[in-house]
Amino acid sequence: MNLLLLNIKELIQVRDEAPELLSGNEMKILPTLKNAWLHIDKGVIQDYGTMDKLPELSGFKTIDCTDRMVLPTWCDSHTHLVYAGNREQEFVDRINGLSYQEIAARGGGIVNSAKRLQETSEDALYEQSAVRLKEIMKLGTGAVEIKSGYGLTTESEMKMLRAAKKLAQNFPVTIKTTFLGAHAVPPEFKENKRGYIDLICEEMLPEIVRENLADYVDIFCENGYFSVEDMHQLLTEAAKYGLRPKVHVNQFTSMGGIQAAVKHNALSVDHLEELTQEDIESLEGTTTMPVALPSCSFFINIPYAQGRKIIDAGLPLALATDYNPGSTPSGNMNFVISLACIRMRLTPEEAINAATINGAYAMDLSKTHGSITRGKTGSVFITKPVPSYGFLPYAFGSN
Amino acid sequence: MNLLLLNIKELIQVRDEAPELLSGNEMKILPTLKNAWLHIDKGVIQDYGTMDKLPELSGFKTIDCTDRMVLPTWCDSHTHLVYAGNREQEFVDRINGLSYQEIAARGGGIVNSAKRLQETSEDALYEQSAVRLKEIMKLGTGAVEIKSGYGLTTESEMKMLRAAKKLAQNFPVTIKTTFLGAHAVPPEFKENKRGYIDLICEEMLPEIVRENLADYVDIFCENGYFSVEDMHQLLTEAAKYGLRPKVHVNQFTSMGGIQAAVKHNALSVDHLEELTQEDIESLEGTTTMPVALPSCSFFINIPYAQGRKIIDAGLPLALATDYNPGSTPSGNMNFVISLACIRMRLTPEEAINAATINGAYAMDLSKTHGSITRGKTGSVFITKPVPSYGFLPYAFGSN
Repeated sequence: MNLLLLNIKELIQVRDEAPELLSGNEMKILPTLKNAWLHIDKGVIQDYGTMDKLPELSGFKTIDCTDRMVLPTWCDSHTHLVYAGNREQEFVDRINGLSYQEIAARGGGIVNSAKRLQETSEDALYEQSAVRLKEIMKLGTGAVEIKSGYGLTTESEMKMLRAAKKLAQNFPVTIKTTFLGAHAVPPEFKENKRGYIDLICEEMLPEIVRENLADYVDIFCENGYFSVEDMHQLLTEAAKYGLRPKVHVNQFTSMGGIQAAVKHNALSVDHLEELTQEDIESLEGTTTMPVALPSCSFFINIPYAQGRKIIDAGLPLALATDYNPGSTPSGNMNFVISLACIRMRLTPEEAINAATINGAYAMDLSKTHGSITRGKTGSVFITKPVPSYGFLPYAFGSN
Repeated sequence: MNLLLLNIKELIQVRDEAPELLSGNEMKILPTLKNAWLHIDKGVIQDYGTMDKLPELSGFKTIDCTDRMVLPTWCDSHTHLVYAGNREQEFVDRINGLSYQEIAARGGGIVNSAKRLQETSEDALYEQSAVRLKEIMKLGTGAVEIKSGYGLTTESEMKMLRAAKKLAQNFPVTIKTTFLGAHAVPPEFKENKRGYIDLICEEMLPEIVRENLADYVDIFCENGYFSVEDMHQLLTEAAKYGLRPKVHVNQFTSMGGIQAAVKHNALSVDHLEELTQEDIESLEGTTTMPVALPSCSFFINIPYAQGRKIIDAGLPLALATDYNPGSTPSGNMNFVISLACIRMRLTPEEAINAATINGAYAMDLSKTHGSITRGKTGSVFITKPVPSYGFLPYAFGSN
């Protein structure tokens, strides 16, 4: 498709030379072109400029963007959007004062999702997940990472990743997949966590690699889930297959997960609600992207990652949704950006950079996504008529 | 239009005899019909029932609601949605650490909105506001209160109320209007607040009543704005014209506003972020509805009204958006319901009752709105396919 977008009120995130990522003060700058045009052909950004210098061209489909902004699509680098069934009953249980333990005793939590997923066919899982993917695409997401982790058996973990791969084939969106077998210890291994980790390393990993189902490997490093030692074991094993880590750390506890992840050259460390000065320092000078998930903090009422502090320390920061049925039943990146401004005190410029260029980096998509740059993929979205890009986080209830 | 909704997964808030309002434990119950039909003719609910008892009828337009819920439209009893221009720059200034005082010194706050509004024609004001009204209608709102209060001159206050009345004529939504001349003291009366109150009482009120522009009267009772004594004076005067109060109290300070409002037979007391035990007790046995505005707390990071405590004290509670350009740039009632569950610990049943039956009460619309009851207005909305009504607050980022 040969497309020409005309009369764009403001073309956002325009970079003639796109940086791989943005750190610290670099995040304060969001380059834009006012009264602009954008030419996309064969899915690739060909050129852009201001309306006073519109070249004479023909043969396009033109779209009039008067009063509207155009942005590169959101890069959501952390989701679990392939899942079976929702968990709104747990949400109601929580309101009614039940503790996590009581909810788990009723069959809640990750294990609840795993049970339902194991009972769901791959086709049904695909269909349910496609509804969610279509919704987030409508909300402006153009690249998304999807994790396994509600299977907890070799067969079910592979079912999830196959469903994710099938979504990638059938929808005009870029999908990266992450193997998260180490999301929780399944009940049958309750007294034998070591046995489950061995299963992951010796059976799941080789099978998944053989079918080329995963781009990355992940582990939930947290008290009551997996330890730093477990992480070392898994990431060492995964490195043999060339799988780079993107890991869950510091959601409830700072226990050395960041340092271990950095040692294993993690592409990203995600969550970070509990972060010490030492944790921040250990990220300096690394190639690991810190990723904040404010919608999770919002929904389950836990502290927000200290994005302000991370950026002020000169580090980069990416924002993602954490879309999942338990702690974050939303894949809305617009709302993530609002939360980042309202609760984490990021400026709109920082939040948009975190959700585009830095989100792309956290999925190894810097070369193709995250900015309006000649040669990058032509994945953009057009807003409703809005007065400025600051309006995007401001109008928190609008999509 | 003769409409028949069929195969409704769950018809929500079905009341053969609709109560005027719901208090305390009554709010825990949300009556529904599963696998239901609903017949609406000439804009009025004619009948409803379960699909196994569908009467033989013909001549309808039918709508298949398989997998979908049907609810009475939201009743949003507190908005300022007629305004000129947005204030996203102040939002950015706040993120950058500017205080309210500094923002006001830059020409921010209510006075900023007033200046812009005075410079905006009635037609332009109407057009801008119509966009916002259409958006909230799409989000399921069917009855809405709209306040003046960004005019602060007789002419501009009347301009706002006329725009609201014109919206009421041109859109299929029920609108109630409230005169809020006492929203802030305009700069020209900075040293002469008394003079402004006299202007309100002696000039604005009679003019507005003569043109029949307002259903209610409101005042922002708060330190630095208007005192309890100001409130007494205004409400005494408004009572002479038969205008019942709906007032802004206890947003930042508990200073006796609730007690004064109750004395003047207020229909509602709104905000309530700062509430003492004495305030709660003073509402017992009255006809005054407490109204919580959680989106305002969310956006400007102030405490949430203690809705849980209010309901547990046996009182009623209504939920509204507070849609306005400064503290709440959103008219999304779905999000208000999510916030009420997530941050105020209301159950989905309580939140939905607060946003329907009790919201209707807070606009004197109990006879026509707020429930699926024969003879009430046929203002309903159909959800996307959802598994349960608990899914509505759970899926906080979806509309």
